[in-house]
Amino acid sequence: MAVYTEVSDEELAAFLDGYDIGGLLSCKGIAEGVENSNFLLHTGGGYFILTLYEKRVDANDLPFFIGLMEHLARRGVNCPQPVRNRAGEALGELAGRPAAIVTFLDGMWSKRPDARQCGMVGQALARLHAAGADFAMSRANALSVEGWGPLFRAAETRADEVLPGLPVLLAGELARLQHDWPTGLPRGIIHADLFPDNVFFLGGKLSGLIDFYFACTDALAYDLAICLNAWCFEADASFNITKGMAMLDGYESIRRLDDAEVAALPVLARGAALRFLLTRLVDWLNRPEGALVRPKDPMEYVKKLRFHQQVTDARDYGLRR
Amino acid sequence: MAVYTEVSDEELAAFLDGYDIGGLLSCKGIAEGVENSNFLLHTGGGYFILTLYEKRVDANDLPFFIGLMEHLARRGVNCPQPVRNRAGEALGELAGRPAAIVTFLDGMWSKRPDARQCGMVGQALARLHAAGADFAMSRANALSVEGWGPLFRAAETRADEVLPGLPVLLAGELARLQHDWPTGLPRGIIHADLFPDNVFFLGGKLSGLIDFYFACTDALAYDLAICLNAWCFEADASFNITKGMAMLDGYESIRRLDDAEVAALPVLARGAALRFLLTRLVDWLNRPEGALVRPKDPMEYVKKLRFHQQVTDARDYGLRR
Repeated sequence: MAVYTEVSDEELAAFLDGYDIGGLLSCKGIAEGVENSNFLLHTGGGYFILTLYEKRVDANDLPFFIGLMEHLARRGVNCPQPVRNRAGEALGELAGRPAAIVTFLDGMWSKRPDARQCGMVGQALARLHAAGADFAMSRANALSVEGWGPLFRAAETRADEVLPGLPVLLAGELARLQHDWPTGLPRGIIHADLFPDNVFFLGGKLSGLIDFYFACTDALAYDLAICLNAWCFEADASFNITKGMAMLDGYESIRRLDDAEVAALPVLARGAALRFLLTRLVDWLNRPEGALVRPKDPMEYVKKLRFHQQVTDARDYGLRR
Repeated sequence: MAVYTEVSDEELAAFLDGYDIGGLLSCKGIAEGVENSNFLLHTGGGYFILTLYEKRVDANDLPFFIGLMEHLARRGVNCPQPVRNRAGEALGELAGRPAAIVTFLDGMWSKRPDARQCGMVGQALARLHAAGADFAMSRANALSVEGWGPLFRAAETRADEVLPGLPVLLAGELARLQHDWPTGLPRGIIHADLFPDNVFFLGGKLSGLIDFYFACTDALAYDLAICLNAWCFEADASFNITKGMAMLDGYESIRRLDDAEVAALPVLARGAALRFLLTRLVDWLNRPEGALVRPKDPMEYVKKLRFHQQVTDARDYGLRR
């Protein structure tokens, strides 16, 4: 649940004066998302989402995100569309933060995804990769293997608080991934955070994707590895191969993985698990006193990482060949 | 910010099947309110608020609240309207809680109310009192003077944690109010919680009132005393008599206080301050570890109470006669 920044009525009114979306009728903070402050706006022009960009979002990256959402929509991906103000800008400043208004997207995210939904996500991810292929901008993935060392060092001395022995586990895994991390895989635009709360369903169909604020240029199969982590484990951290199979089948029905990607999938899945383990760990160890947002439990990804450490073949995730 | 209860997609779909408001398109938790869980619903029939009633709301009282909102709307008070399901019921059960759907009310609450808004609130409060006069149901005020003793005893031994000497201050004030509390004042339906976040403004006018879940039958002037506490102090807990004057003028432009009410206003204001001080204190001392809702600071009402303790005449609040 996230509203980090309070916006005064005067600031909001002045900000909206710059847009041609009618007068303000209502503005309510939304109790979702953990990175930014989100508000549901009702104006004479309809319903919109107002986002104030908080931690981890670099204002310099916002033109990339905004441009990507516009590009993807033109390629048929249903995602929020930035609303441009009277000056033609999709980005402004509100309450000292970069801020944007995007269209309101109907749909519900699935709190307990089933295999059918995993299949639809696999398809949607492959379509996203295809749609991004001709996007002109690029953005390095700050949270790929080069970024994990600094995260590890930020958490190393206190990681024992979460689990005795965790620093050793992390150091070993990090060293191994730094050695084994694949290069030369097909690259392109990846979402990089396509968790269940970023995928909307409506009437039994996948209806839209949101939250492109980790999107970047990286190995396409790494995005799939992130989704296997985010969608195909049960609450007890056991891997559900039926879901994995559905997701991989869905993905490959649109874009077939090449041999190098298939071979790399286990190490990509380990890397994805380590990435979310490290960011959660840092958030957990640095949660402010009295914070209104409960940091996500890093232990979930310790368990997922241990699963991946046993995997040697993409068939263990459900790949059927 | 409040979403205490997570609702599964299946439960929500089953609940909405009972209503004739179209298919579910979106459901987002709202980061406002501290007593109940609120969600913004978008359905084929429009936008609605779904409320799950949590702590402090007794399910047996809900027919009173629902009936009151319907009655007030018929009398011209703009407030959320309960939506009845196919069985004609305005109340159902969802995720193990009593739940209701009400219409979505446009408008923005004022984070920094000015004197003009205080005047409009005074008027709206008097109109609410008039509109409630012929409401057939009644409900005792569980948080009036009889309820403060148990609250005090629940907080007594640990109140020192908030402020050294606070137990003595509270015991003295409680004894005095139990002795001085007025009886025989004009009674009727009061809102009992008309704080700024429960009053919406739109286009410079007061557009609606929400959150009737403390409404009850009590002295009308006590409701005004609550509003003086809630609206007419500055952030540093100094009383702004210009705002008090605007509020009292506004109220009396619709309903003139009688002599007994004028005489009782200082003690009613002390009582109102003690009531919010005690409930905030209990919430503060019992805030759960890792709670996502920050309890309101009881010290704000210690300072307000101290102001009221110096007041001997309603003119000190801005009454102009």
